[in-house]
Amino acid sequence: MNLPRQVVMKEVGPRDGLQNEKQKILTEDKISFINQLSESGLKYIEVTSFVHPEWIPQLADAKDVLQSIKRNQTITYAALVPNMRGLIRALEAEVDEVSVFLSASETHNKNNINKTIDETIPILKEVVQEGLKANRSVRGYVSTVIGCPYEGYIEPEQVLKVVDALFNMGVTEVSLGDTIGVAVPTQVEKLLARLFNEYPPNVFAMHFHDTRGTALANIVKSLEMGITIFDSSVGGLGGCPYAKGATGNVATEDLLYLLTEMGIETGVNMDAILASAFFIEEKIGRKLGSKQLEIARGKRGLAHSDSKHTV
Amino acid sequence: MNLPRQVVMKEVGPRDGLQNEKQKILTEDKISFINQLSESGLKYIEVTSFVHPEWIPQLADAKDVLQSIKRNQTITYAALVPNMRGLIRALEAEVDEVSVFLSASETHNKNNINKTIDETIPILKEVVQEGLKANRSVRGYVSTVIGCPYEGYIEPEQVLKVVDALFNMGVTEVSLGDTIGVAVPTQVEKLLARLFNEYPPNVFAMHFHDTRGTALANIVKSLEMGITIFDSSVGGLGGCPYAKGATGNVATEDLLYLLTEMGIETGVNMDAILASAFFIEEKIGRKLGSKQLEIARGKRGLAHSDSKHTV
Repeated sequence: MNLPRQVVMKEVGPRDGLQNEKQKILTEDKISFINQLSESGLKYIEVTSFVHPEWIPQLADAKDVLQSIKRNQTITYAALVPNMRGLIRALEAEVDEVSVFLSASETHNKNNINKTIDETIPILKEVVQEGLKANRSVRGYVSTVIGCPYEGYIEPEQVLKVVDALFNMGVTEVSLGDTIGVAVPTQVEKLLARLFNEYPPNVFAMHFHDTRGTALANIVKSLEMGITIFDSSVGGLGGCPYAKGATGNVATEDLLYLLTEMGIETGVNMDAILASAFFIEEKIGRKLGSKQLEIARGKRGLAHSDSKHTV
Repeated sequence: MNLPRQVVMKEVGPRDGLQNEKQKILTEDKISFINQLSESGLKYIEVTSFVHPEWIPQLADAKDVLQSIKRNQTITYAALVPNMRGLIRALEAEVDEVSVFLSASETHNKNNINKTIDETIPILKEVVQEGLKANRSVRGYVSTVIGCPYEGYIEPEQVLKVVDALFNMGVTEVSLGDTIGVAVPTQVEKLLARLFNEYPPNVFAMHFHDTRGTALANIVKSLEMGITIFDSSVGGLGGCPYAKGATGNVATEDLLYLLTEMGIETGVNMDAILASAFFIEEKIGRKLGSKQLEIARGKRGLAHSDSKHTV
């Protein structure tokens, strides 16, 4: 297999993960969570989202969080911004990088942002340009790059149209999201082959949700195609805890296992990631379901049982 | 991607799945479970194991089950047999195919069968020869082909040694088992490349456990290497329910989703598989954790909620 030597793991748990949790998480716990992640060897953490608090009350403390975390100068602390208002707040909190977002699917974009794709582009363009002027790098997210809950399969040409728009604005990287976790490797290959006719692999990140268990298979195919940046979420945080089947991002620790065993360097420490996952699952009040966490729980259970000499 | 058009899914849930369940399952429920599976389009079902009842009390009714199921003439009903005694009982119950098993890891073989590999081979040889004489096809399982809980990584040469022994006995197919679910695609590729120097791909099946979430990624790599037979277990049955992290086989329904979406024919019906999974999870008294089951549960939950107009 032709694989990269190194991969950058971009942690989106504090934003993409926590935004859907119903239980109110204290600002100090979020800060503590991010500070723990900063000690794990991760080089990129998406800290929060500067969307309107009415949209996502969980992240209403975005500015507080971003201003209060302990910064490690080697780590990029990023935040999602939907518009100029969000950008201004993010810059005031000294964000390192901002991300803008839209969907490859027209219907999903309308449902998510309440605008058509064509209406969204000029709004993002202003944000990107102002972000770049403020000497920030700007990331673009494209949602539903393989499948849409309303439109079904999305053709690569439709994704390319949106990708072109983002790069024309000046974004430095595009993260391609399989938002509803339907993708299989043949579809990933087809999409990337089309995009790589126009752009080099190193300007893309892949953002998989593991709703159907295919995330790691899709990541392996992406690696073989030349992708070296992957988004993931500690503990597989994300999705909606009250709608079973709407699962979160691929778990950082499961991705880390895969990459490490395939001999790919990440610089990320497994024990530190697991510790932060155990920390945050206590705060959100529900068990997280990654494979590595289950294994760690099993070992803890056995150790406990052993120490008591129970059967 | 270079993929096969068709794949044979071999269902091992009734054997590899149920053998580790602590809760006693009624013989009539096992029969009903297998009869449901027979209606799903599966062409191969491993029904039970003729090991000594003291080893696996759950499968002490092996003969009853095999004799009482409703046979579909297009389906191969197989059973595991560890020795001549097991073979005789299986033949009395009119088994279609028998499977013998040993480990690629010396230490795992000793712990599992209480014999060295060299001591195991002549015992299996007699079973295989007598099975073939009785006009049955014989399958050979090799456990721990990638990793062993005692020895760690297992070299392909060690696996080849055991594979050679099985084919020399006359087995018609070898199923390669990642028993503890540690494999990653690079290791699968290395193993298969070595074996395919000696044997064609179509004499092998792959048997993945999904302990670390890598099963589907390993299956995709196996497909690309030319493998067309995969073992799986409805609901991801298997593993030990009292040792978290010791998980079961890759779930039949998750494998089916992957294959179907990649355009590979299996002849297996998703709804029938899900129905049999819901049936058996009630009987074993614990929730099964496949991704497709979670999605189906979510839909059921939503439908229920919708019908009541609750929020």
